[in-house]
Amino acid sequence: MQQPPPASPGDREEEIDTPALLIDLGAFEANLERMASLLRPTGARLRAHAKTHKSAVIAHLQMKAGAVGQCVQKVAEAEALAWGGVPDILLSNEVVGATKIARLASLARLARVAVCADDAEQVAMLEAAAEAARIRLRVLVEIDVGAGRCGVSPGPEAVALAQRIAASPHLRFGGLQAYHGSAQHIRGYAERAAAIAEAVAHTRRTVEQLKQQGLDCPIVGGGGTGSFTFEAGSGVFNEIQAGSYCFMDADYARNFDEAGAPVSTFQQSLFVLGTVMSRPKPDVAVVDVGLKAISVDSGLPLVWRQPHIRYVGASDEHGKLIIEDGATAPFLGEKLRLVPGHCDPTVDRYDWYVGVRDHRVECLWPITARGGFN
Amino acid sequence: MQQPPPASPGDREEEIDTPALLIDLGAFEANLERMASLLRPTGARLRAHAKTHKSAVIAHLQMKAGAVGQCVQKVAEAEALAWGGVPDILLSNEVVGATKIARLASLARLARVAVCADDAEQVAMLEAAAEAARIRLRVLVEIDVGAGRCGVSPGPEAVALAQRIAASPHLRFGGLQAYHGSAQHIRGYAERAAAIAEAVAHTRRTVEQLKQQGLDCPIVGGGGTGSFTFEAGSGVFNEIQAGSYCFMDADYARNFDEAGAPVSTFQQSLFVLGTVMSRPKPDVAVVDVGLKAISVDSGLPLVWRQPHIRYVGASDEHGKLIIEDGATAPFLGEKLRLVPGHCDPTVDRYDWYVGVRDHRVECLWPITARGGFN
Repeated sequence: MQQPPPASPGDREEEIDTPALLIDLGAFEANLERMASLLRPTGARLRAHAKTHKSAVIAHLQMKAGAVGQCVQKVAEAEALAWGGVPDILLSNEVVGATKIARLASLARLARVAVCADDAEQVAMLEAAAEAARIRLRVLVEIDVGAGRCGVSPGPEAVALAQRIAASPHLRFGGLQAYHGSAQHIRGYAERAAAIAEAVAHTRRTVEQLKQQGLDCPIVGGGGTGSFTFEAGSGVFNEIQAGSYCFMDADYARNFDEAGAPVSTFQQSLFVLGTVMSRPKPDVAVVDVGLKAISVDSGLPLVWRQPHIRYVGASDEHGKLIIEDGATAPFLGEKLRLVPGHCDPTVDRYDWYVGVRDHRVECLWPITARGGFN
Repeated sequence: MQQPPPASPGDREEEIDTPALLIDLGAFEANLERMASLLRPTGARLRAHAKTHKSAVIAHLQMKAGAVGQCVQKVAEAEALAWGGVPDILLSNEVVGATKIARLASLARLARVAVCADDAEQVAMLEAAAEAARIRLRVLVEIDVGAGRCGVSPGPEAVALAQRIAASPHLRFGGLQAYHGSAQHIRGYAERAAAIAEAVAHTRRTVEQLKQQGLDCPIVGGGGTGSFTFEAGSGVFNEIQAGSYCFMDADYARNFDEAGAPVSTFQQSLFVLGTVMSRPKPDVAVVDVGLKAISVDSGLPLVWRQPHIRYVGASDEHGKLIIEDGATAPFLGEKLRLVPGHCDPTVDRYDWYVGVRDHRVECLWPITARGGFN
């Protein structure tokens, strides 16, 4: 069931019903501009990842700020964006199953659509669906550049799969998908740079071998919020797939920059607003934001700009806060902004963004791909 | 947005679109019967916890199997049940905020409703809302019996709050809420028994002190799936609030029984069905069930009855499986049943249960309180 919106435009922040998913609009807009200004000198395009925001509204705002299109991870996300008027969508993942592939193929009449493959059997399934839908489907070859998840090996294996795609009258070879997911959260700058340097080398070699076989790569895509400056500056990647940059989270803020300081390229714009629902002891407060309302897979939430209040434990619907010595304790009913450990799965639990400017609700945006993992 | 159902009645299990939330109906029904037969000789009533299942359909089935009503943790859950015809609902939690309390009070005309408090300030808020709604609201006092989360101290503090409630013309003292959440997952039987023995002692003492002040407890509620046999047999608790028993999960299956064997009181009836979407290496498979489709806060999922296939890592939309030496690897497109680490937050990500009997879809049940954490 879709839940009703927790606020109305014009409400003050403290009137928002909680838990609620807040976007600080000023910080969010600054993040979109910052990304555009960082990519401009590199020539790399931004194809922002919608698995973070799951919303056609945000996709359009990103494209207004210069993004050429969107990445998605699932057919249901592609549907939500295509139905919401997003014109250019790359499914940066493999799709298996006849029904799912047919759904994807049907979207190719609404938007420019591409998908990834890492297996000849998948390519045959895509080919059959494209033929049945009478479209020519763009297919990228995913290569494993170090993450050890999906993807064929860079080099000859990738070239063979690309040739298989290019030989099909129903498919079009779309380029390479070369995302190094696990490198995004390597804390040290030098170590992160080294991991991506290796990914770039694998990708460069594969692009060159493809070229020798007469195959150009319209898209060479990869790079996330933790690493995109390296890919964008490589001269090999032409599309950056960052998602979290527009919101940020506690885990990305634990990465270090070149000077050894916490990365501060983007501002925290996403919050879960909670209410103090119990004050059982002088140094304990309980907030109404637990496991169902915030993702803890990458660490517990932080209380925004209140380092003396620590979120120490989550159960289904409760978060336990410890108030450190001498600090002012929050009152019963007080609203607190929490910074999620991991933004993507936190967003996916909500039906609405509450857009706030200067602590007043400005807009409500539906999260139309919420729960869209099919 | 509500997602479309991933299957239709009559489909074979391997035709279900994934990820999907499956109930094995035979195991589920056996769990409901088993709970009824375990509680019958104790005289304790079952008030099953709907924070697990979030569905009026399941609430009614539990009541058909003998439950006297339902517990919920949130006003949005109480709404989903009351609107779905559930007649007796205890909000086993504190509610703070005028809007939320007014929503709860309005439900008292549809169903028998009660709520908990652990603070005189909350009681004043409940009183004002009950007066405005012209109802008399049942309020239980929550006592902290060892979990260290919400609740007043057992004994005199609880008695004082109960007297405050009983003195109000707009409220009715409803009894004690005495749930020991953290004891549910104490692995050893003796240690679990000892933790609950202490909770029972605190509760017994408080019930007696209330009686000395002329206050009876219509409800003395607590006990979860890990501990309910102790509370039910205590002679003090008259209501059991177990939720997970109908589904079970990998974490509850790590508890030990009196004989030192893994607890086998209930059967695993809840699964996330996934599809193998990539086979990048002979000993690696990637399944389409990641952080968004299954909860990992209490450990990674297990592959049902395939101990040689281990789920070793989750990212947003991927689960990495390792196939151990010599075992048969799953094929591309194969459907696998996964056992969630934690059932409650897993359920909350889905809009539909797919009820399966003998590997064929029998029914679709909407999860009407999905995302209902307001």
